[in-house]
Amino acid sequence: MNPRIKCLRNQLNSLNIEGMIVSNPINIKYLTNIDAEGELLITRRENIFLTDGRYVEAVNSALTIDSEIIVWDKRGMIREDYENYFLFCEKVGFEESYVTYEKYKQIMQLYKINELVETEGIIEKQRRIKDEEEITNIKKACEITDQCFTFLKNYIKIGMTEREIAYRIEEFFIKNGAEGLAFNPIVASGTNSSMPHSIVSDKKIEEGDILLIDLGCKYKGYCSDMTRTIFVGKVDDTIKNIYDMVLGVQEQAISQMKDGANIKNITKVAEQELKINRFDLIHALGHGVGLDIHEAPVLTSKYDNLLKENMVIAIEPGVYVPKSFGIRIEDTVLITKNGCINLTNSEKNYTIIA
Amino acid sequence: MNPRIKCLRNQLNSLNIEGMIVSNPINIKYLTNIDAEGELLITRRENIFLTDGRYVEAVNSALTIDSEIIVWDKRGMIREDYENYFLFCEKVGFEESYVTYEKYKQIMQLYKINELVETEGIIEKQRRIKDEEEITNIKKACEITDQCFTFLKNYIKIGMTEREIAYRIEEFFIKNGAEGLAFNPIVASGTNSSMPHSIVSDKKIEEGDILLIDLGCKYKGYCSDMTRTIFVGKVDDTIKNIYDMVLGVQEQAISQMKDGANIKNITKVAEQELKINRFDLIHALGHGVGLDIHEAPVLTSKYDNLLKENMVIAIEPGVYVPKSFGIRIEDTVLITKNGCINLTNSEKNYTIIA
Repeated sequence: MNPRIKCLRNQLNSLNIEGMIVSNPINIKYLTNIDAEGELLITRRENIFLTDGRYVEAVNSALTIDSEIIVWDKRGMIREDYENYFLFCEKVGFEESYVTYEKYKQIMQLYKINELVETEGIIEKQRRIKDEEEITNIKKACEITDQCFTFLKNYIKIGMTEREIAYRIEEFFIKNGAEGLAFNPIVASGTNSSMPHSIVSDKKIEEGDILLIDLGCKYKGYCSDMTRTIFVGKVDDTIKNIYDMVLGVQEQAISQMKDGANIKNITKVAEQELKINRFDLIHALGHGVGLDIHEAPVLTSKYDNLLKENMVIAIEPGVYVPKSFGIRIEDTVLITKNGCINLTNSEKNYTIIA
Repeated sequence: MNPRIKCLRNQLNSLNIEGMIVSNPINIKYLTNIDAEGELLITRRENIFLTDGRYVEAVNSALTIDSEIIVWDKRGMIREDYENYFLFCEKVGFEESYVTYEKYKQIMQLYKINELVETEGIIEKQRRIKDEEEITNIKKACEITDQCFTFLKNYIKIGMTEREIAYRIEEFFIKNGAEGLAFNPIVASGTNSSMPHSIVSDKKIEEGDILLIDLGCKYKGYCSDMTRTIFVGKVDDTIKNIYDMVLGVQEQAISQMKDGANIKNITKVAEQELKINRFDLIHALGHGVGLDIHEAPVLTSKYDNLLKENMVIAIEPGVYVPKSFGIRIEDTVLITKNGCINLTNSEKNYTIIA
């Protein structure tokens, strides 16, 4: 029996929801390992993947009997087929944070469901806690990311462009066993580093630049996420002090992360430390990492929320001085009963390249 | 005055819609040239881009006074600010095919809008007709794509993998002035070509393979789209005949494309020609190309729909024999008053590589 679908069914039961339409392809991949366009219907007795002619062959060949998924080709279906899926169901769940308003109206018409109810990220919440296989994949993605950073430290030279470096990151990932990028890497040099989501440009790396590199790859669908801020040629003392402060904030946060720790408190400590130094935390302190590069939980001081064993979290404090520079340090960590384990392990002392 | 926003405002006026919330980032880029997370509010008097701290600096530095866009940082906003934007507006439009059901409910609550109405792709429809600047960018993307194909004809050798070739395509694009890929290229060899959406694999190119390559790049945000099916070492006569038939269907379609021509009729002619040869057209005959690789209009025989001057269309008939092979030929063309102009111009005679 597929344990992930079983867990979802138990949760739906406890909410008196008798079925669910899963539309988010990442959630479908999580529950079924299917990588194709379509919808997963969790009906009273069956798990049905509705797809079209282009994918039926590929999907069927990827499934085993243990998957307990029935594949239906939409092309052969008539109106009654849709109406029969959730016959006698009172409440059926849908994914309100994925389904567009237009699609919501179509679902209502097509399936003739009595009560279509919001499920408030029920699958995303389940995905926060990783199983053994997921952790293995994320570890592997993090290893390749560390190797890439080691490569970059030797590879990057004054005069190269940000774009060239970003390109080599992708090449390295693919050549070293990853499926590809988890996201477009940020390679932000000089004043470009002052923008947290800087877009890679043709700016050349210059003597004296700060160089912020945010990178991650995918391994069997699972992401890694790491940022290092390094220095070209020399480090100014003021910058060194700020770097140390950011690193201190990150290490302080990491030291508090464990099963049962409150995310709100951890974030508040980080915010206060930055505040004392007259900086604001202008983005979240961190986020879950898994099949998506950004997934639940988000680390903010807005809500009470506990860390749990086997969550995987990217922890990324940063400071940004407009038009001047930015420093961010980020690691992916695994939450355990008594602490957390760094899955990315690249050097965090001042790295100076030339 | 920003002509694209002016045109949108005129359309909204004629529908008695007094404002609009634009959420789709591609539509925001089209209207404002802003490339950041946020929402564009078209209010009675102003154009407001709501964003957050991460983007304010970058957005402001990209705008000029002529842009007529006011940037607001969400962090400084209170409830009344949201409620004031559409005060005294009866109907305000939203993008029902982009906005999730969850977001729709948030918008209702936050902005306190009397009547939030569906806009049925009003901006996507506007985007179908390209202006001079857009056409220049697409032409440039198509040129780079042609250059890439010329490169590939010499570069591809027996024994290389599909993945290696796909990778070189991206590298070529970036080295030759494109921003990057418009989509993940399809490099499908041998039986892999039988799947219209084949995923690049580690299969090696072999003597006797058909090799289907579907590629496109982005230049200043604008896409190109081209497919060529080439032959490794030799061409079987049966295959040659099918190739000629597909090419004939494509050239026949291109010869009919001009301002005022009915998409339904053009598609029907193509479908009938394939039918005579006992093939079905299992995907659309073509689609618009612009900031998105697939945009309006879609070329099917389902609806009456006219081509208009300055639409840019990818026209891509194909046949697919399951588990055996596929042939597709695709060009990006610009619709003119009296015909159309091929923007991709790579060789369509049998290309044989060794």
